[in-house]
Amino acid sequence: MKRILLLGAGRSASSLIKYLFDNATAEEWYITIGDITVTHLRPLIEPISFAEVINFDVHNEEQRTAEVAKADLVISLLPAVFHIEVAKECLRQEKNLITASYVSPAFLELHQEAQEKNLTILMESGLDPGIDHMSAMAVIRRIQEDGGKLTSFKSFTGGLVAPESDNNPWHYKFTWNPRNVVLAGQGTAKYIKNGEYKYIPYHKLFKRVDSFYVDDYGHFEGYANRDSLSYREPYGLLDIPTMLRGTLRRPGYCEAWDVFVQLGLTDDSYSLDNSDTMTYRSFLEAFLPPPADARESMSERIGNYLNLPPYGEVVQKLEWLGLFDETPVELAGATPAQVLEKILKERWTLAPGDKDMIVMQHLFEFELDGEKREITSSLVATGDDEVQTAMAKTVGLPVGILAKLMLQGRITHRGVVIPIHPELYEPVLEELKGFGIDFVEKERVLVN
Amino acid sequence: MKRILLLGAGRSASSLIKYLFDNATAEEWYITIGDITVTHLRPLIEPISFAEVINFDVHNEEQRTAEVAKADLVISLLPAVFHIEVAKECLRQEKNLITASYVSPAFLELHQEAQEKNLTILMESGLDPGIDHMSAMAVIRRIQEDGGKLTSFKSFTGGLVAPESDNNPWHYKFTWNPRNVVLAGQGTAKYIKNGEYKYIPYHKLFKRVDSFYVDDYGHFEGYANRDSLSYREPYGLLDIPTMLRGTLRRPGYCEAWDVFVQLGLTDDSYSLDNSDTMTYRSFLEAFLPPPADARESMSERIGNYLNLPPYGEVVQKLEWLGLFDETPVELAGATPAQVLEKILKERWTLAPGDKDMIVMQHLFEFELDGEKREITSSLVATGDDEVQTAMAKTVGLPVGILAKLMLQGRITHRGVVIPIHPELYEPVLEELKGFGIDFVEKERVLVN
Repeated sequence: MKRILLLGAGRSASSLIKYLFDNATAEEWYITIGDITVTHLRPLIEPISFAEVINFDVHNEEQRTAEVAKADLVISLLPAVFHIEVAKECLRQEKNLITASYVSPAFLELHQEAQEKNLTILMESGLDPGIDHMSAMAVIRRIQEDGGKLTSFKSFTGGLVAPESDNNPWHYKFTWNPRNVVLAGQGTAKYIKNGEYKYIPYHKLFKRVDSFYVDDYGHFEGYANRDSLSYREPYGLLDIPTMLRGTLRRPGYCEAWDVFVQLGLTDDSYSLDNSDTMTYRSFLEAFLPPPADARESMSERIGNYLNLPPYGEVVQKLEWLGLFDETPVELAGATPAQVLEKILKERWTLAPGDKDMIVMQHLFEFELDGEKREITSSLVATGDDEVQTAMAKTVGLPVGILAKLMLQGRITHRGVVIPIHPELYEPVLEELKGFGIDFVEKERVLVN
Repeated sequence: MKRILLLGAGRSASSLIKYLFDNATAEEWYITIGDITVTHLRPLIEPISFAEVINFDVHNEEQRTAEVAKADLVISLLPAVFHIEVAKECLRQEKNLITASYVSPAFLELHQEAQEKNLTILMESGLDPGIDHMSAMAVIRRIQEDGGKLTSFKSFTGGLVAPESDNNPWHYKFTWNPRNVVLAGQGTAKYIKNGEYKYIPYHKLFKRVDSFYVDDYGHFEGYANRDSLSYREPYGLLDIPTMLRGTLRRPGYCEAWDVFVQLGLTDDSYSLDNSDTMTYRSFLEAFLPPPADARESMSERIGNYLNLPPYGEVVQKLEWLGLFDETPVELAGATPAQVLEKILKERWTLAPGDKDMIVMQHLFEFELDGEKREITSSLVATGDDEVQTAMAKTVGLPVGILAKLMLQGRITHRGVVIPIHPELYEPVLEELKGFGIDFVEKERVLVN
């Protein structure tokens, strides 16, 4: 019997929990699920003999020590900031750990100790980061083994609403943490194009979008992620002239979102003086210049300020959100970003029966035998229902599969590891196909 | 004999030093001037019996203690970050202190102790902050004593180049710390207009300018300072519907500076990966999207990206700075702001013989006896030469006059004080007139 301690049982854990339960008998696992509130899981767990739920407080050192002590493997889906304490506890007690979060500088410091203790801290093992690494590396390695030379790699991922549930003008609903969506892209995006570093400040990010097309699903647009450069080394692409990673949305989203950026509504760095007495309309008003003419409508004021057609699609998207209404904000000492998040939640929350959709596309350009060629590798995953969402499946299943591999002793990499090695990504990508998480690949010769 | 310890002997101290020397004999002062390098002052000091210069290191606690111990009054023109250590030393040894810098939160914490020890820490005593407070409060108090009710107060100040030395298309040269000019306005500007709070994000700041006119000097434009609200309380204007403070430039400057903001060239939050191998042109290039067409000129690329006429005045201003040239940057690990500062310094440094100019304008609107009235109060000060600059005079003379008042025992306010009280500003404004630093006031009835 192997014991798994799963920390974090939020919405995105549903598919991972299902995977662990489905494999528990055959793999002889006992699963302990801990989170700050687990009431919603009790009915699920009750008839099951190989699992338990516990109220778990990551700040309770005694409990942390005791629960990690009992485990053979720890999986953390807690918010990223809490991982480091869990990781240190795992190191002390010489336990392996899997998370779906980014390797932060604090984790890099644990690499050597983990190696010395023959442990694996497996990070970036969900969707993005996770499946993106695995699926990209599979193609990159194949191109390189065939003797091809990569000249360009673009990789874009989006968590979106499925076409059958897409009934709003933004073609977007929240399928993960709304706060992260509101703050997305802040800072400077950095990438490389034809051998030259490129920098995009936040206030230009949503204006500089690329177009993407996925068969059967149509057009998408993508904006650059903050750092497209740091994966050149782990991917073995230090000399690649063009590399860009980013986020996908449906066409039209970025131009409308840019209005929020231009107005300053996504700023999380200061509190509004009067958010408690604001309405949605007066919140918007606080970021607009005074009207040139008292007869100007709100649409005209926005249009004139931002050089947009006053009654065009962009301004209509804002109006659809209720931003022109005198609805009370009812938040005290809120930042602009917090107010905006509240407004968006009212219109962008998944309704009962809504399905989400994950779209990922990699574009590889390479030279082989004197030819310029392109491979497009695309994934679309749709949620089964509101519990087994596409997001939960694509984050949770790779974590679950990697957990199985680890407990089977099939992972030999030690230290702080991300899934860029064939022994990790090959079995994961293979097993994911059985869940309908499969990439469609197309290759063509590029005409100069 | 009273001993003055003046810390900080940079360029902006020249007029203060002259004022202190001119008054030393009559006032029976002995003046010690300390800075990290004082070699440039030695020839000046040599024939003078009532002053000395010392190499002073603010981080040398022993020296700090010893020098403060000898002084009756300490004046600090050191960079603002060093003031707090000096202030704490003054409190310990029960000495009064004058600075020209903003009251930071750390200083507010010293207020009570200074009051209890019967000491005065007089801050914001230079130009802006300093003369702006004094001259505004003189008018505000007069309006209020006459029974007027203030409805709007705007106050704008600029350090500019004098018309006779204005020979560049930006109508601007550096007359104070270039780094501060490059970083000016970062954050969110906050003001109040017709009773409503207004917020301007940095990337809109230089687009939302107001126009100003000063007799004999012509037109100016002004952008909002970061915080226009915090002086409502000390000014006794808590209920004023409109209050805005800002910075003056010549018309056209803000639109061209906005290009730097839009491109991201003023960002000081990250280092460029390759600033050591960049040229001015490739620095600019790194912030532009790839050209749509290889035949596009640099002017066209900027124009197309930022929606400007490619060969219009704005883009011409950039070209004039040498930004399109292949001049090596020669800075390693520099932020965009640091590279920009280096480029600007080559063209915006005052030439020998150049004179600078300070312009300040207050606009007061008020209701009196059922009439709406406006008072415009304007100051223009021009430098005598490259040493006695307008900046040095307007920063240094009020500090010097306040030092005299303090040593004469004529300042009764205790604690951390700014010069908003008549006992401070009345004698200062009066004595400044003798130096040609005098406001011109105009009053008119506003037609509704």
